[in-house]
Order: sequence, then C-alpha cells, then structure tokens
Amino acid sequence: MKGYAMLSIGKAGWIEKEKPKCGPLDAICRPLAIAVCTSDVHTLWEGAIGERHDMILGHECCAEVVETGELVKDFKAGDRVLVPAITPDWNSVEAQRGYSMHSGGMLAGWKFSNYKDGVFAEYFHVNDADGNLAHMPEGMSITDASMLSDMVPTGFHGAELADIQYGDEVLVIGIGPVGLMSVAGASLKGASKIYAVGTRQVCIDAAKKYGADEFISYKNGSICEQVLKMTDGKGVDKVIIAGGTVATFADAVKCVKPGGIIGNVNYLGEGDSISIPRIEWGVGMGHKQINGGLMPGGRLRMEKLGAMVANKKLDVSPLISHVFHGWESVEEALILMKDKPSDLIKPVIVIED
Amino acid sequence: MKGYAMLSIGKAGWIEKEKPKCGPLDAICRPLAIAVCTSDVHTLWEGAIGERHDMILGHECCAEVVETGELVKDFKAGDRVLVPAITPDWNSVEAQRGYSMHSGGMLAGWKFSNYKDGVFAEYFHVNDADGNLAHMPEGMSITDASMLSDMVPTGFHGAELADIQYGDEVLVIGIGPVGLMSVAGASLKGASKIYAVGTRQVCIDAAKKYGADEFISYKNGSICEQVLKMTDGKGVDKVIIAGGTVATFADAVKCVKPGGIIGNVNYLGEGDSISIPRIEWGVGMGHKQINGGLMPGGRLRMEKLGAMVANKKLDVSPLISHVFHGWESVEEALILMKDKPSDLIKPVIVIED
Amino acid sequence: MKGYAMLSIGKAGWIEKEKPKCGPLDAICRPLAIAVCTSDVHTLWEGAIGERHDMILGHECCAEVVETGELVKDFKAGDRVLVPAITPDWNSVEAQRGYSMHSGGMLAGWKFSNYKDGVFAEYFHVNDADGNLAHMPEGMSITDASMLSDMVPTGFHGAELADIQYGDEVLVIGIGPVGLMSVAGASLKGASKIYAVGTRQVCIDAAKKYGADEFISYKNGSICEQVLKMTDGKGVDKVIIAGGTVATFADAVKCVKPGGIIGNVNYLGEGDSISIPRIEWGVGMGHKQINGGLMPGGRLRMEKLGAMVANKKLDVSPLISHVFHGWESVEEALILMKDKPSDLIKPVIVIED
Amino acid sequence: MKGYAMLSIGKAGWIEKEKPKCGPLDAICRPLAIAVCTSDVHTLWEGAIGERHDMILGHECCAEVVETGELVKDFKAGDRVLVPAITPDWNSVEAQRGYSMHSGGMLAGWKFSNYKDGVFAEYFHVNDADGNLAHMPEGMSITDASMLSDMVPTGFHGAELADIQYGDEVLVIGIGPVGLMSVAGASLKGASKIYAVGTRQVCIDAAKKYGADEFISYKNGSICEQVLKMTDGKGVDKVIIAGGTVATFADAVKCVKPGGIIGNVNYLGEGDSISIPRIEWGVGMGHKQINGGLMPGGRLRMEKLGAMVANKKLDVSPLISHVFHGWESVEEALILMKDKPSDLIKPVIVIED
Repeated sequence: MKGYAMLSIGKAGWIEKEKPKCGPLDAICRPLAIAVCTSDVHTLWEGAIGERHDMILGHECCAEVVETGELVKDFKAGDRVLVPAITPDWNSVEAQRGYSMHSGGMLAGWKFSNYKDGVFAEYFHVNDADGNLAHMPEGMSITDASMLSDMVPTGFHGAELADIQYGDEVLVIGIGPVGLMSVAGASLKGASKIYAVGTRQVCIDAAKKYGADEFISYKNGSICEQVLKMTDGKGVDKVIIAGGTVATFADAVKCVKPGGIIGNVNYLGEGDSISIPRIEWGVGMGHKQINGGLMPGGRLRMEKLGAMVANKKLDVSPLISHVFHGWESVEEALILMKDKPSDLIKPVIVIED
Repeated sequence: MKGYAMLSIGKAGWIEKEKPKCGPLDAICRPLAIAVCTSDVHTLWEGAIGERHDMILGHECCAEVVETGELVKDFKAGDRVLVPAITPDWNSVEAQRGYSMHSGGMLAGWKFSNYKDGVFAEYFHVNDADGNLAHMPEGMSITDASMLSDMVPTGFHGAELADIQYGDEVLVIGIGPVGLMSVAGASLKGASKIYAVGTRQVCIDAAKKYGADEFISYKNGSICEQVLKMTDGKGVDKVIIAGGTVATFADAVKCVKPGGIIGNVNYLGEGDSISIPRIEWGVGMGHKQINGGLMPGGRLRMEKLGAMVANKKLDVSPLISHVFHGWESVEEALILMKDKPSDLIKPVIVIED
Repeated sequence: MKGYAMLSIGKAGWIEKEKPKCGPLDAICRPLAIAVCTSDVHTLWEGAIGERHDMILGHECCAEVVETGELVKDFKAGDRVLVPAITPDWNSVEAQRGYSMHSGGMLAGWKFSNYKDGVFAEYFHVNDADGNLAHMPEGMSITDASMLSDMVPTGFHGAELADIQYGDEVLVIGIGPVGLMSVAGASLKGASKIYAVGTRQVCIDAAKKYGADEFISYKNGSICEQVLKMTDGKGVDKVIIAGGTVATFADAVKCVKPGGIIGNVNYLGEGDSISIPRIEWGVGMGHKQINGGLMPGGRLRMEKLGAMVANKKLDVSPLISHVFHGWESVEEALILMKDKPSDLIKPVIVIED
Repeated sequence: MKGYAMLSIGKAGWIEKEKPKCGPLDAICRPLAIAVCTSDVHTLWEGAIGERHDMILGHECCAEVVETGELVKDFKAGDRVLVPAITPDWNSVEAQRGYSMHSGGMLAGWKFSNYKDGVFAEYFHVNDADGNLAHMPEGMSITDASMLSDMVPTGFHGAELADIQYGDEVLVIGIGPVGLMSVAGASLKGASKIYAVGTRQVCIDAAKKYGADEFISYKNGSICEQVLKMTDGKGVDKVIIAGGTVATFADAVKCVKPGGIIGNVNYLGEGDSISIPRIEWGVGMGHKQINGGLMPGGRLRMEKLGAMVANKKLDVSPLISHVFHGWESVEEALILMKDKPSDLIKPVIVIED
C-alpha cells in the first residue's frame, strides 16, 4: 500500500509499505477524510519525537473499517468510524488508574505516527477496535468527523483540566484550532467570561462564535498585565494554555487567582524547563494548581463528543478553513500547516465521500 | 412598614410590622422586583413548613440597600443588589464543611419566609451582607435579576448534583422554571442530549430554547419505559429531578445507567418516604448515586451566576411569563402561581424601576 | 476436572466438568487457597441470582497460573497470583466511564460463579489475565492472599463510597468480614471515631483491632436513636452499610448529617425497595448522598491492596477464624458459613501450600 | 501587656504593648502552651515576609479565652481552646470558593505574626471566635494541643493536596515536624509504601513510628535517582514536599508517575522560580499535577484533627523533642529552632498547666 511518510527529520514523501496485519482484537481501516495537525509539523520538520525513518504520518481521520480481528465484537468491515488520535491499551495499569493516555508509559497511548505508522495511508491499523473506535453518527459529514480525532478532545481536555465551573472567568492562551475548542469547551462548562489570547482575525472571528468575550494580543505587552488590568487586578479563576511556549506558564501563574487552576494542552516542543514564579505562586502555598495532559482517547470519548456534534451542541465547521480532495493534496496541506498563512485554521483532506 | 404575610395556613394578607433592625454585619433592603415561587404556595396553602403566624412571605427579589451595619465593608445605602434565597452563616461548621445551605441545621440557611420574615415587604433584613449580597451588574434588568435568587441557582444545582459531563445524556424531570434552569444548566455543562419530562406547551417551547432535545409526557405512560425505549434500552447517564413526587425516584433509578447519578432539587412536600427499587438499584451495588440538595446561596454564587446573565451566557427572560407592577399585584401573582394556568412559567412583580 | 458446583437451588456437590479453555488473552489457574463467602450461601441456598445448574461455586482464592493465552504478556505458567472476585472487560464503555465492575451490564464484571464457573475447582478461567491478575507479593501467605479477592476490596470500597476524610465520625453497620474491612478502611482514611453495629464477640474483638471505638447493638433498640444519643444529637459524618437489610437505610439517613454520605456494600437479597424517609432526607434537599456499589476489581486494585498487606499496613489475619485443608473441606466450610456459629468470621481452605 | 516581638529583621525582644481590643465577633485569649515554628525563624532572621517593627511573634499555641465579643455564641471566658495558625474571614468570596486560607488575598488567612500581632504575648486577639476556635477536647495535654495549630494541619494538608489513595506509593521530601505529619497523614490515607527523605536520626526514628518504610538521604546523590532505583524505574504515585528548596520540584517531577500529584506544603523562602523539567513533565502533557497550598484553618479543621488526637488515632507526642516552661524560655526555644541541633524536632513552651 501507499503511505505518506516521514523519511527522516525534515524529509517526507510517498512510500510503499506492506498493509498492516490485523491481530485478534484489532481493525484495519482506510481513511475517509484526514486532517493535518501542527504535531505532524513538529514531528516531521522539528524532530520533536526524535528521528524516525519511513514512518507514515498522521493521527487525525475518520475511516471505514476493512477488516477486524476474530475477537472484535462491535465493528465489521464497511462500518464508518470515528478514530481517536489516542488509542490506549485499556487493560493496562495506567488505564485502570484513570490515565489511559499513558498506558504503557508516559504519552504511550499516542501510537499513530509515534510508535507505529499513522493514518496518512491507504490502510492503517487500530489496536483494540472495540475499545478505541466509535461508530460515526448518521448524517455526520466526514470533514466534521475528522475534527473529533484530536481537535475537539484535546481542546475540551483543557477545559476539563482547568475544571471550569459555572460563572468562572477563564483565560484561554492560544486560539488555533485546539485553543478554539478550549474556548468552546469552557463555554460548554458555563464560563461567564472568556479572555482569549490571539491575533489572527480568522481565529478571533471563530473564537467569538465559540464564546470568547475579550481578546488579548501579546503584541500589546505582557499577557498577565493585560489580564490583571481587565479584571481590576483580581485575575481569572482558571487558565487554559493551548499555545505559546514554556514561558507562557509564568504569565498564567501571575494572573490566576489563589485556588485557581492552570490546565495545559499545548505540546511544549522546546526549552529545558517551565518556570513558575515563586512569589506569585504564593511562596509554594497559593493553591495555584498546575496541570497538563494529553487528551483522553478511546471509544467512549469518541461516542460522547461525537454525540455533541451530531446533536448540534457543538459546531466544528468553523475550524475547517481549507478543504482539499484526494491523497495528492497531503503535501500541500502539510506545507500549509507549516507556513500557517493568516487565513488558516485547519486543513482537511477528503479522501472519499 | 407593610408586608404581605402568611397569617396562618391557608390565609394571607397585608399586615403592618416593625421595620427590621440592622445588626453590625447586616443590611436592610427594599425590593425592586420580586418573584413568586411555588414554595410560597407550599408554605401558605399546604403548610409545608408548618404553621406560621404573620410571617412575611417571599424569598425571591432584587433590591436596593437602605441601611448597613457598622462592620459591613462592601455595601452601602443606595447599592442595587442581587439577593439569594439562601443566606448562610458563613462561619458555621456546616459552611466550613462545604454545606453552607445547612448552616445551623439541615436547610437552615433558608431563612427568608422560614426562620424570619421574607422579602414581600417594604423592607427586609439580610444577615451577613458582605457574605450574602452581590452588586447587581450594570445594565441588568430588575426582572432578570429576580430570577437569580432561586430559579437559576436551584436549577443549576440540579446539574451540579448530577455532575453532568461532556456528552452525557440527561433526563430532566419537570420543566417548570426550576426544571428549565436545570435544562439550561445541563446544556451549559456539555450534555449531548437532554430528554425533558413536561407537557405544557409554554414550558416545552422554553425548554427547547434551553437545549432540550426530546420530550416525554407522563400522559403517555411510564417515564422510565419511554426513556428506555428512546435510548435502545441503555438508559441515560444522569437524571435531574426538578418536579414530580416521591414516586419519581423509582423512575429515575430504573432508567439511569450503573455509575449514573440522580440529582434532586425538587421540594418533596408529601409522602412518608422515597422508594428505591432494589433490583434496579443493583441489589445495592449498582453505583446509582442518589443525591438531593438545597441550592447554594451567598455572595459568590450570586456574583458568578449574575455574571453569566450579564455577559449573555444565559438568557433568563424566557422564564418570565407574567410581569406585574406594584405591591398591589402580590395577591394576584400568588394565586396565579397556585392555579398554574397553561401559559404560566414565572410571574414577576416590578416594585420600582 | 472436578469442581464443587451448585446443582440447583439448595443442592450442591462435586461434579466432573471439562477443563476450561484458554483464549488468547486469558489464563487458566488452579487455586492455592480458597475462601467461602456469604454470597456463595445466597447463591446456593437462597437462589439470589436465580436458578443455576451445575455451576461451579466460589469467587475468592489465590492461585497458580497453569496456562496463558498467546497475547498475555505479564504472566506465565507457575506464577502465583492474586485473583479478584470481579474481573472486568477493561475495554468496555462502562470501564472507560470509570465503572469497570459494570462492564457489559450492571454488576456484569462479577463473572465467577455468576456468568461462568467459579473457583472451587481444580482449574478455573480468568478473562484478560494481564488486566485482572496480580503477582502475589513475596512472603505473603496464601490464606492472607485469599482475603484480597473480595473481603478487603469490598470492605474498603465502603470507605471509598462514603468518602471518609480526616476526622470524620463514621458509623459502620455490620461487622462481619466485609464490615471489619470497612472499619479498617475507615481508619485508613483518617476517621476520628468509628461507631460499629454488631453483637458477636469475635467480631467486636476484631473490630477493636481495626479501629472501632464504640459498639452498638440492634438488640438495644433503634440504631439511629443510639447513634444520635452518643453524638449529642449531631449524628455522624458518614455511614458505611456492610450488613443489615433494605430497612437499614432509613436508620442511616436519620443519623447522618446534612452533607453526609451513605455508602453501601451490602448485597441486598430481599425486599421490593429501599425506603428513604422523606423528612429526615431534608424533603429532598438535605445533601444526604446515598450510594452503593460493587467492589472495583482488576489488576491495579489487587496490586495496591496487596502491597498494603505485604508492607504490613493492613493485617488481614484477624479475619480468618477457621482454616481447613484440602478440597474435601469445601462442604463443611460452606455449611459453616451458612450456619454462622458465634465464633465464625471467615473460613479459608488451604488447597496446596 | 508583655509580648515577645520582632523589633526589626534580625532583632527580637520583649516589649510592652496595649492589650488587644475585642470586636463583636472576636475573642481575646491567653496562651497555655506555645510552640516555636521554623516560620518564626524565617520571619525574624530572614525577613521572609519583609520588614516588621515591634510585631509580636508566634502562631502556634493553645489558649484560654479571657474575653469574647457580644456576637460570639459558642465560647466564653475560661474556655480552653485549640487555636489554628490560620484564622480566615469565613464570609469572604475566597472562603466561599473553598479557599478560606486566602480570604482577603493570597495567604491572607494567615494573620498571626503577619498581618497582626502573634501569640507570644500575655494576650492575643482571635478574629471570628465562633468560626476559628475549637474547644480543647477533655484530657488533651496542652503540649499536644499546641501541635494542632500548624504542624498537624499543615503536614496533613500535604497528604490532602497529593490526594493519597489506598495502596499509593508516596515520597515525602523532608521529615521535620511538618514532614513527619505528612508521613502520618499519608499513612492515614492508606499509602502502601512511604519513602522519606531525611537524615537526622531523631527524625528518622519518628518517621518510622508514623509509617515511613524506606529512607533516602540527599547525601547519597540525587533523590530522584534513588527513588527510581528503589521502584524499579516506575517512580511513585504521589509526592509530598515538606522541605527542601525551589530545586526540589525537579526531583519530584522526575520520579512521580504520569497521572501522579506533587503536593507542596513547604514555604519556599528563596529563589526566583521553581523549574519544572519539560521532558519529564511529559512535554506539557504528562498529567503530573503540581500543587502547593497553605493549611486550611478554622474551627471545623481544629475540631476534626483534635478529635483524631483525642481519640488516639494520631499520637503527636513524638514531635515534641523539647519542653520548656515559662515565658522566659521563648528566646532560648527560638534560638534552638534557628540552630536546629541534631536532636531537635519541635520545642514547646508550657506557659501554664
């Protein structure tokens, strides 16, 4: 089969590989629509997860099942499915502890284009089909469905980590596609006011649709000073970090209230360490909780978030700024994601309607 | 001063009473808009809290402060304020345990028209002004503000008790004004599908605005059978009870999934006991949590929910089906609440714009 | 192979059955020590789970692995293992929701001697060996190990359901072996005072070792009145129900504080329904949470509780009042459990040292 | 009255001051036994909270009430009381949010010897007596009682922040008196194994009594490497930081499992910032939660922890290494705390039996 692969750091291209084999619990699927992620850019051009050779890229798609193992009960060839970016080993002790995304080791629930080939191929392999796939709701478009692999569950996880409660004032740092879903996620947990940090107009327009109330640009000075000014020095109840760098946390700590929470879903690609300012962190005793986590994946997550989209509780279409058609567009979409032109939010490639 | 009082069970009327005295932590306020509650009907005509003589009715209003005690720091005469129905003693051990509404004893945080005179009077008394009042957000209408005393915090508490999570399927039993706010509260916690039990068209129309997807009528048979049928036998993740009787819980237990939660905010006025069906409750081991609680009151609650309304995250205007003007309308509004005509949701009386 | 089976309700005996087959994820084990449970009595003589024919009894044991499926990674023939009574399907949506014991349906994580043959046989089958077995800690006696199947995890789950916090006053109703583990579990969550309901001296003596402070006998009148008297009318913070009947809940509701929790781990074998007294439940609004649940099983649970025993944080030996030797003792032990003589807590049968 | 005061940074001595005035909600108390804290050393000699003039030191004691305000209901002159180091304003929005220790601003619930005079004086002032004092349990020694002001609630809060669960493996960094109470607190939440970092023999001996299993010395190299070695590379479930510096967090992050929690109760006196290592923190996505907080104070906390001591669930006497008698010993005890000789854990001064 053909797959679009990372040949080595900085180099990508189409390669020929053997079709993956289907174990007794597994499924083999073929993509219906795929989406390109900033993580693909990190992996390929920045070597974020280290050197890889001939590893097929991609972790966002919806798909059709073409084969299932003999122990798979709920899926069969021909089923259209939602596919999460994170596909845990559900019987691992980590999953039993509530952290399925770290099954087998920290972040090791992330398998596509990390520990095995990804989804930018004619066929891809899904471990534990019953535990990790979900039936695509009827009537859902395949482009919408592709947003459920990573964008929705990751963005929403930011709001989960920050434990948004009714009436919370929330700062969302970063309003790329993940940050937009954090804005939506914060709205859908009852935030009373959402301050969003971002500058591109296309993202600001989408953020407004998702419930952002005020906008902050790093171009106007320190984020935390702007937030403190806008809140009469009180700061915000919660912060979701969905963009920025290791330096972003200092701003977050400075403008969150004591007893507040900082929830990070941003992949931190560079820097030795995150610095937490001692004084503003209450000399260790300010109850400013700092957390960061990979999205929960798996079947139930897909079913629940899928139902929100299917039942029109969440409209993911504003995320999709570019739609391509056919495998031949992969490279163009990937370069678009790398270059991030001003009108880009998320590019999707329709493989087969 | 004049106040509209319960003279005895079944009898009400205007009486003359001394203006309440202001302790060092307290405030004396005068209502700007008041709302009539089904609880007033229970109290007056059904004797739900027992016999009372010359007790001024009412616990829903917004107000203007006319006097404050010498230890009050954040409020002064002339301030326009949100007033919660529940005004706890914040230094009580119950409040320190997290249950301020039970400060001083079960339900004893409910003071208006229960342990002391209510708000249907020229002046009323608020204990711990700094802890229990909130400044009315600029631009908020006084009719909207009156919905924040009880309807919003009680309805939302149903969704809090049921611990609604992204994608949950939720059954809301009862769509009077509290149930409507439970529907809104469930939507604002990310429910993917809301089944609502109710029959009056005016309520159904409002429930749709607040996010209800499917409607169930007790006239069509057992609630739980209808729910199980609509969910392919799976049942719902969570149930919010905002209406019905002690018998309602059996339906809820039968159609909630194992690991689900039943959150009750309905005042149960009659019956010796609530019956939990043994088999469907998993012979004691089904993890079908049953909880019920009085709304949390106090200042922070009012500030947070008030901000949701002020920032247009929640529109309370669909609750207000009838607006009266002037103290002379109290009796009419109360009788309306008792008779519950088909077009009624909630009557509000504007005292002074 | 031979197995001690329920032939039909009320009849039991040794039968010959085919040795179970090992699927790719499974293990076949042989018991080292088995324990008899009151549930076996319910199943066999009371028909609690309905009629069964030639179903091998038993769900408590430790064992040696004799065979593993080809996908099993962490266990091999000859390994000595802890075996939980509850062996979930970890990739089920129920387990993904956090309720693995209800995987595949309410209580359906309970498979031994319910949905398949139990452990009172030369060989028994374990689904998902990697997810459900744990290596027996070095130096642990096999009699101690057999207490980890059900007694420890169920009793401790009572304390988990009741969410015991530092300094809580706790009522534990029932001090059979499960209730004793609830006493120990409450102590190991920092209860400041434990009131225990029970009358047999052998149980009272053991309960004192596990941290019970005061004892209450149903022979001296209403449990709730005794508790209220002992607590100056205040009641307790939390209640764990580990014995009694459907009528026990009324007592619990009456003597728990508002904001308190009732956690049930008692199998309720009879009665149409549990009655919750309306007034004492705060007319629906007292925040007296009622919950009941089957023990969590699986590998992590066994590893964690096993480590507590191995590291001498918990001494299970006071539970074991009778030790038998050899398969031929099964009937005697079972009848002992049925008759509950005054010196009985828990009988264990050593099959092979 | 006389009080032992910080005259300026580095200088202390006895001064004459006016007896504090009693507001309507307050109490004036006189100490029965006082304890010296490392925080007093930080405040006086290191200027940790900045320059102060003639501020009476001390925040740990038990006391006798000598006067109460007219609104105080539950205390009267002559009552013997437990006094928490942290005395919140319970009606503040911060307390209503669940963070009473930050009432009025971050850490501002800490008033003694910070925002007002401390307890090393003939008389001291307690705000909100009903909300902040607790009756001393009968039979409790005053030296034991003095451990309840800060050592027990702070040490236990470490175990609360780290959310210790049954069977957790826990690393406690620092086994001074607070760290010892974190060890005890972890044991009393069901830890299966406690690794403790400390070197002084007197502390190691006490830590063993409180449940520590293994000891680690920073003198033998990196803490995290030692922990990883002792846990076969797996790391621990939770970390409690009760000593060390801003550099300690990096060790904690490196040896806690994904999904684990780091709870800090150590006052961080120096350094610009805490550094969280990016890679070991899962590039932002490892779910290694970092939290740190000031102890919760107030009445309920004192009542609950006091009951644990009174009912012999916790023995605080191993903390008290030195007992002095009379006000004249204050200076000696303070210098002892500063010098930390090898046999010191905690010095207490009995003022009046």
